[in-house]
Amino acid sequence: MERVFIIGTGLIGASTGLALRGAGFAGRIDGWDTSSLEMAAAVQMGAIDGRASNREDALELARLADVIVLAVPVLAIKDWMQQLAPVLRAGQLVTDVGSTKVEIVELAERLFVEAERASFLPGHPMAGKESGGAEWRGWVGCFGSRTLDMDASRHDELCAWVSHLPQMLSTALAALLEDRFGDAPEIAAIGGRALKETTRLGASPYSMWRDVALTNTGPVADTLLALEQRLQHVRENLRTPELRDEFALANRFRQRR
Amino acid sequence: MERVFIIGTGLIGASTGLALRGAGFAGRIDGWDTSSLEMAAAVQMGAIDGRASNREDALELARLADVIVLAVPVLAIKDWMQQLAPVLRAGQLVTDVGSTKVEIVELAERLFVEAERASFLPGHPMAGKESGGAEWRGWVGCFGSRTLDMDASRHDELCAWVSHLPQMLSTALAALLEDRFGDAPEIAAIGGRALKETTRLGASPYSMWRDVALTNTGPVADTLLALEQRLQHVRENLRTPELRDEFALANRFRQRR
Repeated sequence: MERVFIIGTGLIGASTGLALRGAGFAGRIDGWDTSSLEMAAAVQMGAIDGRASNREDALELARLADVIVLAVPVLAIKDWMQQLAPVLRAGQLVTDVGSTKVEIVELAERLFVEAERASFLPGHPMAGKESGGAEWRGWVGCFGSRTLDMDASRHDELCAWVSHLPQMLSTALAALLEDRFGDAPEIAAIGGRALKETTRLGASPYSMWRDVALTNTGPVADTLLALEQRLQHVRENLRTPELRDEFALANRFRQRR
Repeated sequence: MERVFIIGTGLIGASTGLALRGAGFAGRIDGWDTSSLEMAAAVQMGAIDGRASNREDALELARLADVIVLAVPVLAIKDWMQQLAPVLRAGQLVTDVGSTKVEIVELAERLFVEAERASFLPGHPMAGKESGGAEWRGWVGCFGSRTLDMDASRHDELCAWVSHLPQMLSTALAALLEDRFGDAPEIAAIGGRALKETTRLGASPYSMWRDVALTNTGPVADTLLALEQRLQHVRENLRTPELRDEFALANRFRQRR
């Protein structure tokens, strides 16, 4: 592996470049981002050596690379996969960092299966790597990361529970409080750590979550419905021994962590 | 104010004794707790000077005190109010640290109104003091605390939103995950800060929350129902522009904090 091209040089893309350098990668790293500010910052911090000057140039740099890392939101990843598949060749590896995997894997199975095509290795920096690409996996191991193989639909279901549900929950709670209290000073005066922690993710921007909601709608909706029913159960049992059982289950969950 | 008697020498009761000492209180502080371990710890850390040997002795020490601090759960506070009212006299002040205030204030209005009776000052260390008791308020100010006057029903409603709802939510989410995944290793492997923060309160013991659920049932149920409806709204709009509005509201809530 001598040349890497990173599409999307924001936090995750730039971190990938820095992690490669940290792991001793001595080859060339180029990058492309629709924001020239993001690209300039990535160059300045040493995450990439060079930058594409436009989309055409980006496709050309992709053609020259051994590994292409797609570090953009899920729908943009799918768009790049469509553009890259016809211009890349066997021996090249495309990998991605998207938060949901089922739609990406389905598309990869259409675009990157023929023998003359590049290989595609779906990934998620938080949740590990799903298949193939031994040399790239070796580099990822050098980043100090553990890798965890997982079926795409199991990945999306589990991520709905441990990541997407907490996000939607925190957004819903913060939006509800904003609607209900606006800038009432009492909330600021008496809200403590409990409020802060459960609403912190409410600060996440829609732009980061839109593609997750669009590409993992079913599993996220399932987790939301399950939580709605669970809250109803708690509400209907505030004065019964069922509440004790609920606390006992929750305590057991936390003791394992 | 020369003698203080603290009923319940756990975290909050012992902290009150230490805060009085820290603020320069030179009088005597006695304590009582049903757990002799808690009392021994409170003596050892200098939070109290002496300890009652049993409930009878505790009533006698209460009779000798200028200020009696009830630092036990809400139902136990109500029980102590019943026991103390007939044996105390005008000039003595009873205060409490209970998490809910409506039922305590209603009881105080029955037990502590006649001229020959002691005064009752309902309090909540997190949410401030609600009425009267100038000298004791002065000491509380010396603890470095701000005091905030609030109507009891407003207090219970706001605490339902900023404290009781986050607790019930976190308990429900952790219980749901425990039911759904038990000890599946993937949850531990891929769960990050989002999961940790939104389930942390799930570790809270039922014993701390039973009295809140029993004495603030209506307001807590109202907040739970509102959140259920809000989660349903998010669930039904995962693929519509409404989700953007929900994130925008949540962002606004967090920007104020």
